[in-house]
Amino acid sequence: MKGIRSECLGEGVFGGAFTFPLMVVKRAALEHNVATMAAFTRDHGMLFAPHAKTHMSPEIARMQLDAGAWGLTVATPSQAMTVRGFGVSRIMVANQVVDPAGLSWAAAELDADPSFEFVSFVDSRAGVDLLAGHAGTRPFQVLVEMGHHGGRAGCRKLDDLLDLAAYVRATDGVELAGVAGYEGALKTADEVRKYLAILQNAVEYLRAPMLSVGGSQWFDVIGRELVTAQTAIVLRAGAYVTHDDGYYRERTPFNRVEGSLEPAFEIWAHVLSTPEPDLAIIGMGKRDAPYDEGLPVPRRPDLTVVKMQDQHTVVQGALKVGELVAFGISHPCTAFDKWRVLPLVDDDYTVVGTVNTHF
Amino acid sequence: MKGIRSECLGEGVFGGAFTFPLMVVKRAALEHNVATMAAFTRDHGMLFAPHAKTHMSPEIARMQLDAGAWGLTVATPSQAMTVRGFGVSRIMVANQVVDPAGLSWAAAELDADPSFEFVSFVDSRAGVDLLAGHAGTRPFQVLVEMGHHGGRAGCRKLDDLLDLAAYVRATDGVELAGVAGYEGALKTADEVRKYLAILQNAVEYLRAPMLSVGGSQWFDVIGRELVTAQTAIVLRAGAYVTHDDGYYRERTPFNRVEGSLEPAFEIWAHVLSTPEPDLAIIGMGKRDAPYDEGLPVPRRPDLTVVKMQDQHTVVQGALKVGELVAFGISHPCTAFDKWRVLPLVDDDYTVVGTVNTHF
Repeated sequence: MKGIRSECLGEGVFGGAFTFPLMVVKRAALEHNVATMAAFTRDHGMLFAPHAKTHMSPEIARMQLDAGAWGLTVATPSQAMTVRGFGVSRIMVANQVVDPAGLSWAAAELDADPSFEFVSFVDSRAGVDLLAGHAGTRPFQVLVEMGHHGGRAGCRKLDDLLDLAAYVRATDGVELAGVAGYEGALKTADEVRKYLAILQNAVEYLRAPMLSVGGSQWFDVIGRELVTAQTAIVLRAGAYVTHDDGYYRERTPFNRVEGSLEPAFEIWAHVLSTPEPDLAIIGMGKRDAPYDEGLPVPRRPDLTVVKMQDQHTVVQGALKVGELVAFGISHPCTAFDKWRVLPLVDDDYTVVGTVNTHF
Repeated sequence: MKGIRSECLGEGVFGGAFTFPLMVVKRAALEHNVATMAAFTRDHGMLFAPHAKTHMSPEIARMQLDAGAWGLTVATPSQAMTVRGFGVSRIMVANQVVDPAGLSWAAAELDADPSFEFVSFVDSRAGVDLLAGHAGTRPFQVLVEMGHHGGRAGCRKLDDLLDLAAYVRATDGVELAGVAGYEGALKTADEVRKYLAILQNAVEYLRAPMLSVGGSQWFDVIGRELVTAQTAIVLRAGAYVTHDDGYYRERTPFNRVEGSLEPAFEIWAHVLSTPEPDLAIIGMGKRDAPYDEGLPVPRRPDLTVVKMQDQHTVVQGALKVGELVAFGISHPCTAFDKWRVLPLVDDDYTVVGTVNTHF
């Protein structure tokens, strides 16, 4: 396994116990981000179910719950099983769950542990029927999902959503817990406000106890628009936890409101070759750092990333063979899933813990 | 961990022991590909060191060695350590190795086991010096790497390569084993022929015992051009082992010469939502299937993949919620690294083994 070679707590990452490329998680930034979003949601009267699909790490899940998270969100039933194995007792699957193995597992888990809470989305009668067909003695809690044209899943019309809610209420084995939406694909604050108004109208009309929204890119608008709702607002932001130096740095609401998130990821790699003037081949590739929402961001302003290959990154700039170079990343979700264990480091790069991932 | 839930040998993948999305490896195709390239290299008088960075799997490494592979190739010292842990006794790192932890490991391993063979590339005096500085009692075997403009690493001029080879021969701790190149970035057979001629001239001039080239996209040209060389030709093709339905299907030399490779990967996923007519949201995303060299290829011709997100794929076509859909993939390297264990299946999707990956 790449990265950590052996027990290394208390060692420096540049001390010889590590091979490179090496992605590290900076403890100060991670803790700052966890505390910042916990405070933001608390101050705005919202519940927080951080999206664990981002990290799938028991250590980070524990930090989020210790900071007051209401529960954890996941994307798939398989992730729900994994997070349940971390000891999490309240799980939201932010999708319609249709997987028979996943549904059977969830029903058995609900029956086995009366304190376990499991909430998922529905956007069709077929989806409701699948849930109902797998229900055990406790019904599945569901949120009817409202989407929008050009968005992902979710009903496209309010009437369809209300019809579906009525169908849920008439069906044994499922119970209406509220309304869900995802505003992350919308482009402007105005579009977000209009969409949130629809969600809020729906949940008030249905007199349902919960409204869940995304939150990574628009939690400022959500915090302003939805605080007066009589329902519990559950935010599902995920990428905030490590933040980044690219996609989310550009899009975080903290560019508009007071506060900040800090990039917690850093990847270090060697210069393998300098075959032409001002051209360096770095020992870090698509297997090591994300490339889907922006390429890695060199920490040195005189360097430019040209392209990435499976195991290499081509960089423009004056570098020497054997030199170590540091990069920030863009898109936390596709950074975490490239590593099975990441060293958690202090400001001086001493290893103070590990972040394990379970993808 | 996604995919396999429990012991499942002898079960069908659709029988309930698996969650979806699920990527499977088809045994017949895998075995066919391993046998095909083993035969091709043997018939053309070449040695074969399949690139294990593609799969990083002990089960597949064993199959390749059992089929007669001379050794295994890797991209990084960390991968060398891992593959060494599989029990492999001849490892080629197809890069200049500059990582101190990796070099110290390799030197210790060479000293500890007289039968262990370790070969790596150099393209600069700085790289040679780094190797020499870490050498144990047995010298590091190196291939001087010839590149080309617009390529990756490697000397850009033949004179520089010959100078470097002389420097290697004059330096304690390293030993010249031959010449290496990588023709995979070249666009035409003519360019490949010219480049191979340079490599062959260099290795003959140096009277070195080995010439290593890539091989995935041009093994037909290599087989024709290099068979008469007095040196051992070592091919490093990697992606052939599972082949694909995209990038390599279009580029395999078997489109020009007799023979075939078969796509061994297939990924199955549920339709989670059909929010608009002819629009389906599939429960498979960037975490599950490659998207960097072409999107997944639906096995049904009436379906079109529009885009992928972290956990979702948007598909055009008439589908039903809960339905399972099969896709081929494009680019094996970024498929393997998304799964920690893959079921190996028979033609009827009975699980006959597992493919574990060690990234």
